[in-house]
Amino acid sequence: MANNSDYAFQKCINPECAATFDVAEILVKCPTCGDMLDVAYDWDKMDVPGSLKDFEKRWTRTNPLDFSGVWRFRDLLNFCPDDCKVTVGEGQTILQRNDALAKDLGIDAGCLHLEYEGLNPSGSFKDNGMTAAFSHARLVGATASACASTGNTSASMALYAHSTGMSCTVFIGSGRIAYGKLSQAMDYGAHTLQIAGDFDDCMRQVQAVCAQLGIYLVNSLNPFRLEGQKTIMFRILEQLGWQVPDWIIVPGGNLGNSSSFGKAFAELKQLGLIDRVPRLAIINAEGANTLTHLYNDRNLRWNDGRPDADLVQEFYDDLTARKYSPRTVASAIEISRPVNLTKCLRALDICDGVVISVPDEEIIDAKAQIGLRGLGCEPASAATIAGLKHLLADGVVDPSAKIACVLTGHPLKDPNLTVNYHKDNKGKFSNPPVEVPNDLNAIIKAMKQA
Amino acid sequence: MANNSDYAFQKCINPECAATFDVAEILVKCPTCGDMLDVAYDWDKMDVPGSLKDFEKRWTRTNPLDFSGVWRFRDLLNFCPDDCKVTVGEGQTILQRNDALAKDLGIDAGCLHLEYEGLNPSGSFKDNGMTAAFSHARLVGATASACASTGNTSASMALYAHSTGMSCTVFIGSGRIAYGKLSQAMDYGAHTLQIAGDFDDCMRQVQAVCAQLGIYLVNSLNPFRLEGQKTIMFRILEQLGWQVPDWIIVPGGNLGNSSSFGKAFAELKQLGLIDRVPRLAIINAEGANTLTHLYNDRNLRWNDGRPDADLVQEFYDDLTARKYSPRTVASAIEISRPVNLTKCLRALDICDGVVISVPDEEIIDAKAQIGLRGLGCEPASAATIAGLKHLLADGVVDPSAKIACVLTGHPLKDPNLTVNYHKDNKGKFSNPPVEVPNDLNAIIKAMKQA
Ligand SMILES: [Zn+2]
Ligand SMILES: [Zn+2]
Repeated sequence: MANNSDYAFQKCINPECAATFDVAEILVKCPTCGDMLDVAYDWDKMDVPGSLKDFEKRWTRTNPLDFSGVWRFRDLLNFCPDDCKVTVGEGQTILQRNDALAKDLGIDAGCLHLEYEGLNPSGSFKDNGMTAAFSHARLVGATASACASTGNTSASMALYAHSTGMSCTVFIGSGRIAYGKLSQAMDYGAHTLQIAGDFDDCMRQVQAVCAQLGIYLVNSLNPFRLEGQKTIMFRILEQLGWQVPDWIIVPGGNLGNSSSFGKAFAELKQLGLIDRVPRLAIINAEGANTLTHLYNDRNLRWNDGRPDADLVQEFYDDLTARKYSPRTVASAIEISRPVNLTKCLRALDICDGVVISVPDEEIIDAKAQIGLRGLGCEPASAATIAGLKHLLADGVVDPSAKIACVLTGHPLKDPNLTVNYHKDNKGKFSNPPVEVPNDLNAIIKAMKQA
Repeated sequence: MANNSDYAFQKCINPECAATFDVAEILVKCPTCGDMLDVAYDWDKMDVPGSLKDFEKRWTRTNPLDFSGVWRFRDLLNFCPDDCKVTVGEGQTILQRNDALAKDLGIDAGCLHLEYEGLNPSGSFKDNGMTAAFSHARLVGATASACASTGNTSASMALYAHSTGMSCTVFIGSGRIAYGKLSQAMDYGAHTLQIAGDFDDCMRQVQAVCAQLGIYLVNSLNPFRLEGQKTIMFRILEQLGWQVPDWIIVPGGNLGNSSSFGKAFAELKQLGLIDRVPRLAIINAEGANTLTHLYNDRNLRWNDGRPDADLVQEFYDDLTARKYSPRTVASAIEISRPVNLTKCLRALDICDGVVISVPDEEIIDAKAQIGLRGLGCEPASAATIAGLKHLLADGVVDPSAKIACVLTGHPLKDPNLTVNYHKDNKGKFSNPPVEVPNDLNAIIKAMKQA
């Protein structure tokens, strides 16, 4: 490896010592006097820009709408003038080529990509859609917003509401409340109404209240949110040098993402901006597998816009009769009546899609693998990798296919699950702390065993 | 406000209905048939790019080093060749002009800016320095890394270690362990050794082990970490159109940030890239106020590289005699022996700095205000705004000064504090949930009171 100590070197900060050392030495303190080290430069040997402005060649962001990972694609979600558009800097997300995880899964090098939507300002992909919904809210002159949610949606709504100068109210039920999930909504100043009832009561009441008081409803049916979510696909294409991948893999909950992804590719194809669409794989948790059941077992299809509504109603009636509640560790997709079901069927039609379900144990193992190899994610996001393992084993996805998995939320959205998994040694990839005496030899022995 | 429904409109997805509606109507479902709505476009009326590549004009990121918010300034931290440089996409952070918070504080519009370093991949500013340290580790051929830490440092180390293909070990003590803070290190695959001893024992043992086994020590003394942290200042200048602000405000813990900021401005001045340096305000928590005490009360100064070492030793001996442990809710700055003290004195000298301390109650109130007006932060980050209030009240900072506050960590780093503050109504800005009967009129009444 090259040694460029012609340029930088290490230097003692003690002026009476001022000893210098090669940059390629591992030094913590000055070996001459014991004082601190600094990195120093002979600037005149170096090629330094003549002006700070020269750095702009590497990074252009003069217009805040261009900085936004949503609005720099504004031509493709053009429903309001620029002066209505709200941005808090959403969409600075990363598509990571992950060869280490690819190897673990038996996928060819260069083929597996992970899209980290948890790097959005509120910590989840929801910001993509919320920036669009609040831009629409401004277009129509709304001053107040509301939704029923205890999780990522309420966090994102509250962030955009206060950034837009709008009030916002979160409706939650009176059952067990996971306050950790509400922490952001409270932090961002949402009014929280705890309705004496369950989630369905909240949903009914929020719709009634919004209709009566003229409040902008930011729930999952809002079509403008899906417009914003299209840009997740635009950013994946951008980072792949505008090459269309073979597969997009996404967790399935309310099915807004899959619906918007299908719409994005249909529009790009229609415009002649891409010549083929990728295939779409939607991964349910086994404890919340409505789509898997209806699509795979009951053969529910888009059917040119006429899906079999009776089939769906029959299934939902049965859920009601059984008082069925979905249950999975992947709380962001713990949904048994996905509101975007119909649009999702269209996306599956557009993208020749497949749907499967995975058990919780496989989700939390996959979550640990994503942490071990990548930047980490919330549990629901890991359904993608858990599902991909099955799709590879079943020969549906080829190990040489170009794959992009959408990791929807930040690893810090659910730290307790991570702690329990590792500390209590609960899974295949658990990584618990090791107790060691305060003794150098014992520690060195433990290091060598690690 | 302009209505551009010439371009986008809402359309029922039911092909037998296919009703269309103005984009400026607030509709959740099709008012004609009750089915779902979609956003649709007459693309031929719109100005759509002829090729996806056209979007690149708005956003150039062909070289991964240019995408990195650290390495796109690589000319100014040039200590290794490009092929040693590690990047996971760090530094996609946001400088937010926050007029709402400025108004709360009595600062002129356009003057207050918040730099969100919590948007880094591991959730804190540490990634800026760790990407540099691990690049240096590659330069010197290291294959293993270690540090003593239970918080943001261990998370960032573990992320860069596995991204670089290096092993890493975190040393923690056997006292009370805040596992939430360790969740990321475990998730990212760090080996964790729990030494039967306190933090000082860990620090001593990790240094001995690294020396003996040739392991790369990533602790706070590592000078390459400070090189990376300089880029936080470069990004602030970049977002301010290369205008130097009047004040940089930063929390003071181990004092690595303030040290590196001073170095950054000294170098830029030396190179003629800026014509003046900003002033620096370092904010301690009252429960961890070593710098405040030594700088303000004992008049400790840089003194051309010869600070009064006896003064420092005397103070530390007294801490030892008193068995003093620092204690603040701002855990990231809960440090009474800041390892970068000397370099920080130099930074205070370069930047005509000031130092103050703030009590925990003011930190958590300021944290709530940052959540209410901005993107939120971890408790330590809020020391900046808590301190700024004092600096304004004391006339040290002028309300028309251009101010940039560095918010070091993500709001999800410490959700429990946020929940307790709001839910239990503990502070001036607490925002607890309100219980309401499952009744429309009662809910509407509660909404109007909010
Ligand atoms: Zn020396
Ligand atoms: Zn209709």
